[in-house]
Amino acid sequence: MTEHCDLLIEPRWLIPVQPEGLVLEHYALAVRSDKIVGIGPVAEMRERFQAQTILSRPEHALIPGLVNAHVHSAMTLLRGLADDYALMPWLNEHIWPAEARWLSAEFVRDGTTLAIAEQFSGGITTMNETYFFPDVAAEVALQYGMRACVGAPIIEFPTAWAPDIDGYFSKAKTFLAHYKNHPMIHATLAPHAPYTVNNASFEKIAQLSHDYHSVVHCHVHETAQEIHDSQVQYGMRPLARLAQLGLVNQRLAAVHMTQLLPAEIELLAASKASVLHCPESNLKLASGFCPADALVKAGVNLALGTDGSASNNDLDLLGELKTAALLAKAVAIDATALSAPQALTMATLGGARALGLADAIGSLEVGKQADLALISFADFDALPVYNPISHIVYCSHRRQVSDVFVAGKARLVAHQLQGFDIAALKTNAKAWGEKIRSVNKAST
Amino acid sequence: MTEHCDLLIEPRWLIPVQPEGLVLEHYALAVRSDKIVGIGPVAEMRERFQAQTILSRPEHALIPGLVNAHVHSAMTLLRGLADDYALMPWLNEHIWPAEARWLSAEFVRDGTTLAIAEQFSGGITTMNETYFFPDVAAEVALQYGMRACVGAPIIEFPTAWAPDIDGYFSKAKTFLAHYKNHPMIHATLAPHAPYTVNNASFEKIAQLSHDYHSVVHCHVHETAQEIHDSQVQYGMRPLARLAQLGLVNQRLAAVHMTQLLPAEIELLAASKASVLHCPESNLKLASGFCPADALVKAGVNLALGTDGSASNNDLDLLGELKTAALLAKAVAIDATALSAPQALTMATLGGARALGLADAIGSLEVGKQADLALISFADFDALPVYNPISHIVYCSHRRQVSDVFVAGKARLVAHQLQGFDIAALKTNAKAWGEKIRSVNKAST
Repeated sequence: MTEHCDLLIEPRWLIPVQPEGLVLEHYALAVRSDKIVGIGPVAEMRERFQAQTILSRPEHALIPGLVNAHVHSAMTLLRGLADDYALMPWLNEHIWPAEARWLSAEFVRDGTTLAIAEQFSGGITTMNETYFFPDVAAEVALQYGMRACVGAPIIEFPTAWAPDIDGYFSKAKTFLAHYKNHPMIHATLAPHAPYTVNNASFEKIAQLSHDYHSVVHCHVHETAQEIHDSQVQYGMRPLARLAQLGLVNQRLAAVHMTQLLPAEIELLAASKASVLHCPESNLKLASGFCPADALVKAGVNLALGTDGSASNNDLDLLGELKTAALLAKAVAIDATALSAPQALTMATLGGARALGLADAIGSLEVGKQADLALISFADFDALPVYNPISHIVYCSHRRQVSDVFVAGKARLVAHQLQGFDIAALKTNAKAWGEKIRSVNKAST
Repeated sequence: MTEHCDLLIEPRWLIPVQPEGLVLEHYALAVRSDKIVGIGPVAEMRERFQAQTILSRPEHALIPGLVNAHVHSAMTLLRGLADDYALMPWLNEHIWPAEARWLSAEFVRDGTTLAIAEQFSGGITTMNETYFFPDVAAEVALQYGMRACVGAPIIEFPTAWAPDIDGYFSKAKTFLAHYKNHPMIHATLAPHAPYTVNNASFEKIAQLSHDYHSVVHCHVHETAQEIHDSQVQYGMRPLARLAQLGLVNQRLAAVHMTQLLPAEIELLAASKASVLHCPESNLKLASGFCPADALVKAGVNLALGTDGSASNNDLDLLGELKTAALLAKAVAIDATALSAPQALTMATLGGARALGLADAIGSLEVGKQADLALISFADFDALPVYNPISHIVYCSHRRQVSDVFVAGKARLVAHQLQGFDIAALKTNAKAWGEKIRSVNKAST
């Protein structure tokens, strides 16, 4: 008896991620509506399913869609505005002034649209977003079909989004309530960092996170300076302060973590908090090295993020994956550290776990959402192929991503984005660039 | 009075590299035969030159062709054969056995062809090659029009290329003599490493390098283990040993250099030796961190290489450039270290200097060879553009390379490789992959 399915994908290699390291050759994956309904050898699957569409991808690897665990989408409009600066001058003298001048719902709408297009075309199916105007970012994600965690920002200074801390909290509560139990948008709390949020606010955040079961997405231990300043101001390191305030638990998604003592790694493991690793941003801002391999060995859940395009300067998670896998070895002084399969887990299931979505996404398993990416090894510069997993990690670039599905819906087909007006996207990005550049030039 | 030229290229941005950091907007570059014959504002150039072909590239940056300062081209056939191993097990248990089984003129011909195709398509116009059967590699480079330095290998164990050390030297002399004063192929001496070449051989190499004015291309200070073993065996560090043997001079092109004391950096600067930096290989094999910024600040000439595809796993110098620029900042703990313009110099003029070719290539100057690459910023994921140099370094991928010229001849036009049988290239690469994989599997 045959079952109906909407889509039967027949790749050369199927990499489910769970179990880690497994490569299935000549297997097919069946999708019905938004879900994976079958995985098996091609002949068996063709017999079992009556597929509306068969997608043959004979030189491709099928993987779970990539999870971009840390991004500021709208900052794509500031891509490369200020390079070769350290974190604090970069923020104080360049990024925050630019935001003070340009931040608006319009800016967030256009920047997020551009960012989602870039992320789909590079195999990303879920983004963990934090920026101002999260309501707008969530709308754009819904409009284009990106699965998204979207953070309500909390910061102790006024912006175009909120005039004061009460404003941030009141908007956060509205936002959390609005997206409660939404299938595609998950509202999170996004305090900017320990050095821009005070204790009273963190206590409120802990309470809200508990009440709404929402992830707390926060930059933590990004630089040595941050640690030093916290010692001076609070008499303790930021992670200890967050622990004291009740925030170090399985809902904490701590971004960066370039400064970690062994006891802190143990605390993260014991509390089941996640680390969102952004190696390229950490390198570019000379923030330090996150001990990725030590974290994995200690049992800490590790996810991977691009960070915003103002500090990276792209949303290329496949490129970030290569950087992360390479860098982890040199940092650990061990070439066997963070193996290719472990690195791929970080970029998929690790992200899903950090966001509390591991039951729904992050691996190819029957019953999970059909969030999928296909990577082509058809070009001569991807040949020969010995090991598809290490091939993805060490020698793939984002233009090899051929097809992307989110919840069963096609977002990229044969390298072509679906549902975007590409000409408008480009005109719009250029117009913002001209406007921002002209003011930036005038002021310097 | 108008002059004839073969080609007038009109990019949006022209980045000559010399002077460092300069960006010329709406300039054109004229090519006659193999040389750059004019650079100036578009209107002026159109008046001055009667061009046979005008190449309009209105959303592109024109740069000097990239110089891949360290590559083992034929190893492209071993791309990803053995990942997640440290240098010595990687060499002893995987790479050297595979080479013992497969190394032949045929292997080198096919691997080098594949490697040249990959390098052209990523904007590389000169490669500094070192592998066995250099005569074959040189022939392939000539056949496809890649400018190449090709090293005659010297190593104290037998291979399919030579049965003993006398054989290596006799073949090296023949090779050096054959390519003396060749316009496109420059023969170099390529002793493998201080730990695989003895003192008597290094003394002969010093003499030959002096007699033939040839570059000595050698892996030096790749790992801490190498330093340790040299201390034990020779009572000194490898660079000191090379200095004692008369090899540390302006003809030394020392690859890797992840272990450097301040006095060694001074020695390199004073002797005008060059460092060939291969950051991704160093990371992947956990060899260590080359202090790129400290070297540049000390006045040492720095070049950039991909290394072979067995340890990287691609020949993507644009990707390597991003990694190098990012990593240098974290290693220096200074976000202003190795700025984007300095990094671009490293990948072009730095390579030319290391190879003794700075009079001919490495920058866009009238009288130099027309070795050129165009990088497209036309796609939405390259927008907006604030600073074309930092854009190339921090947010470009190799598929943005649209056109490549070597000595005025087109090797890539509108993303299409010229002069290769792509279908044969792929069939061939797959066939080698199947063959090598089957034996590799059988033996493990």
